Amino acid sequence: MSIAFDHTTSAQRVLFGTGRAAEHAQAAIEGLGAQRVLLISSGSAARAAEEIAARVPVAARIGEAIQHVPVESARAAVELAETTAADAVIAIGGGSATGLAKIVARDTGIPLVAVPTTFAGSEATAMWGLTEAGRKVTGVDERALPRAVVYDAALSRTLPAGLAMSSGLNAVAHAVDGFWAPKADPINAAMGAEGLRALIPGLRGLAADPDDLDARERVLYGAYLAAVAFGSAGSGIHHKICHVLGGAYGLSHSEMHAIVLPYAVQFNAPAAPEAAERVTQALGGRSAAAGLYRLRGELGVTASLAELGLREEDLPEAARLATAAIPDSNPRSFTVSEVEAIIRRAWSGDEIKE
Amino acid sequence: MSIAFDHTTSAQRVLFGTGRAAEHAQAAIEGLGAQRVLLISSGSAARAAEEIAARVPVAARIGEAIQHVPVESARAAVELAETTAADAVIAIGGGSATGLAKIVARDTGIPLVAVPTTFAGSEATAMWGLTEAGRKVTGVDERALPRAVVYDAALSRTLPAGLAMSSGLNAVAHAVDGFWAPKADPINAAMGAEGLRALIPGLRGLAADPDDLDARERVLYGAYLAAVAFGSAGSGIHHKICHVLGGAYGLSHSEMHAIVLPYAVQFNAPAAPEAAERVTQALGGRSAAAGLYRLRGELGVTASLAELGLREEDLPEAARLATAAIPDSNPRSFTVSEVEAIIRRAWSGDEIKE
Repeated sequence: MSIAFDHTTSAQRVLFGTGRAAEHAQAAIEGLGAQRVLLISSGSAARAAEEIAARVPVAARIGEAIQHVPVESARAAVELAETTAADAVIAIGGGSATGLAKIVARDTGIPLVAVPTTFAGSEATAMWGLTEAGRKVTGVDERALPRAVVYDAALSRTLPAGLAMSSGLNAVAHAVDGFWAPKADPINAAMGAEGLRALIPGLRGLAADPDDLDARERVLYGAYLAAVAFGSAGSGIHHKICHVLGGAYGLSHSEMHAIVLPYAVQFNAPAAPEAAERVTQALGGRSAAAGLYRLRGELGVTASLAELGLREEDLPEAARLATAAIPDSNPRSFTVSEVEAIIRRAWSGDEIKE
Repeated sequence: MSIAFDHTTSAQRVLFGTGRAAEHAQAAIEGLGAQRVLLISSGSAARAAEEIAARVPVAARIGEAIQHVPVESARAAVELAETTAADAVIAIGGGSATGLAKIVARDTGIPLVAVPTTFAGSEATAMWGLTEAGRKVTGVDERALPRAVVYDAALSRTLPAGLAMSSGLNAVAHAVDGFWAPKADPINAAMGAEGLRALIPGLRGLAADPDDLDARERVLYGAYLAAVAFGSAGSGIHHKICHVLGGAYGLSHSEMHAIVLPYAVQFNAPAAPEAAERVTQALGGRSAAAGLYRLRGELGVTASLAELGLREEDLPEAARLATAAIPDSNPRSFTVSEVEAIIRRAWSGDEIKE
C-alpha cells in the first residue's frame, strides 16, 4: 500500500465543556478580539442565547433562523452585520442558525463562532447552503468555516429523543461515507474512525438513558470529528443518494441518512475492505452493513424510506438522478439498476444479516 | 469520564507522495501564489534542492544550514529574505534547514514550505529555536508553522540506518509523551494514537528491510501525525527529562529519546491507564513500557545513556534540573529521587519485563 495525498487541515478552535457554553462563547469572542457581535439564535436555543448575550458585546440580534437559509433572510442578515459594523457573528442553535451565520461570515469576512445544539456537524465544515426560488445551492468557502466552535452537551438535551438518535446516525454517516469520498485520505480517515469510536458507544448509552451526560458528550464529540472528516473528504455514494432523496422528494433529513447508510455500506464494503474494517471495529460484530442495520434498530429509528413517505413509483427516477451524482471514484463501480437496488432495499427496510 | 478541552487546530496543507517532492513543492508554492522564493537546504538534501530549484521561482538560496540555528545565521537569512523581497521560503532538509526557515517566517511573516528529509517532525509544529552565545532559546509562534509540508519518503533514504531508527523512535516519543502533556486532549490524543498505529509497524518493516518503501512511508506519515499531536499537546515528563540531558550534557538527540522513553512510560503508566492502553494497542503485548523497551532493542538502537557518554556522577544534578522542569499536571506526582531513578535506569539500560 502506497501513501499519497494532498490534505488541507483548516484552522479552528474547539472549546468543549458541559454547562460552559456562555463562558466558552465569551472566551472565543475575546480570543478573536471582537467588540461588536451579531448574535443569531434558533428559537429552541433561546435560553442559551440569553446567557451568551449577557457575556458578549452584542451589536445586533436575529432571534429566528429559517430552515435551508432562504436567500432573502441571508441578504437581510448580511445587511444587518454591515449596518451595525459587526466584527464577529455567533450562531446558537441547529443547522438553520449556523447556516445563516455562515453566509454572513462568507460575505462580510467577519469571524464566526458556532454554538451548536444538534449533532449535525455543520459547524465543523466550510460548506454553506442557500435556497433561492425553491432551489438549494451549496458551496465551500473557507470564510464560512467557524473560527471557533463551542460544544456544550447540555444544549442538545432539548432535542427530542428520536431526533437525537437519527441526528447521531447522520453523524455516523459523515464518518463512514467519508472513508470512500473523493478526497478521502489517511488523515480524514483517522478522524472519522476516532469519531466512530466515540459515536457508537455514545449513541448506545444515550438510547439506554437520555440523561446520561457522558454518553451525550461522546456523541457530540464524535459528531464533531465525523464532521471534520466529512468536510475534508467530501460526499460519497451515501450522501449523493440522500441528497437526491432529500432534494427531489423532501424526505426528513436525518432519518433518511440513518435508513440508507447500511445499504450503501452493504454495496461498497466488498470493494472497500479497509473502510468496512474500521466500521466493524467500532461497532463490534463481523459485518459493517449488518452492524449499522442493527444499530439503527437498537436506536429505535424508522426502518424504511416507505415509512418516510417515499413512493415506490419514484424509485427508478431517484436511482437515475442519484447515479448521475455518485463520484466516479467510488470504490465499487455502479449501474443505475444497482443504485436502484440500494434505494429499493432502503425503501422496504430489508433486514441485513451478518 | 467527562470531556472538557480547549483545542486549537492549526491550518496546514500536507502533500504526501514518494518521488514527488519537486512536483509537490511547485504545487505548494503555486498554491501560495509566491513569485520570489528563498530556498534553504541542507548539504545532504542537495539533489532534492536542485530538482525543486528547477521548478520554483528562486530569488535567493542558502545552501548550508547550521545545527541549532545560531542567531547570526538567522539574522543573515532574515536579511537575505528582506533584501531579495522573498515572498515565500522553502526549507529542504532536516531540523537545521527547517529551523532556520522558521525564523525567517516568524520574523518576516512570509509563508514557509517545508520539505523534510528526516522523521524529526519540526515541520508540523509552530515551535522555533535559536542559539545565542551557546544558549538555546525556544518558543512557539504561529507564523513559524509551515503553511505547507511536502513529504517524500525517498528523501529520507539518505539517512543512515541507525539514525532512521532512533529518529523514528523519537517520533514515537512525540506521540506517547503527548498523551500526558499539559495540553493533552482527546483530539491530539487521537492523532498521536493514529501516529503510533503507522509508526510501529513501519519501523519494524524498515528495520527488516531499509529498502521497504511502504514501511518508510508509514514511518514518515506516522511521524507527521505524532508531531502534530506533540505540537498541540506540548512537552510531558519524557521531553522535559530529555531537554535537560540534551542541553546540559550534550547527549545525542534521537538516541537519547529512544533510550529514555520506556522508563518515563514505566513511571507514568500506573497513573495513566488510558495512555498506556493506547501504546500497548499499537505495540502488541501487555505492558507499554516493556513493549517500548523491546522495540528499541529490536531496532538496534543504543541501550543506555552510559553508552551515549553520560557520567554516573551527573545523574543527581540531572534529576534536580529535570524535576524542576516536569509539568505539575503530570498524571503521577514525582520527587527528585523518583526522577533520578528514571534517569538511572535509562543510564544503565535496565531491562523492563512484561
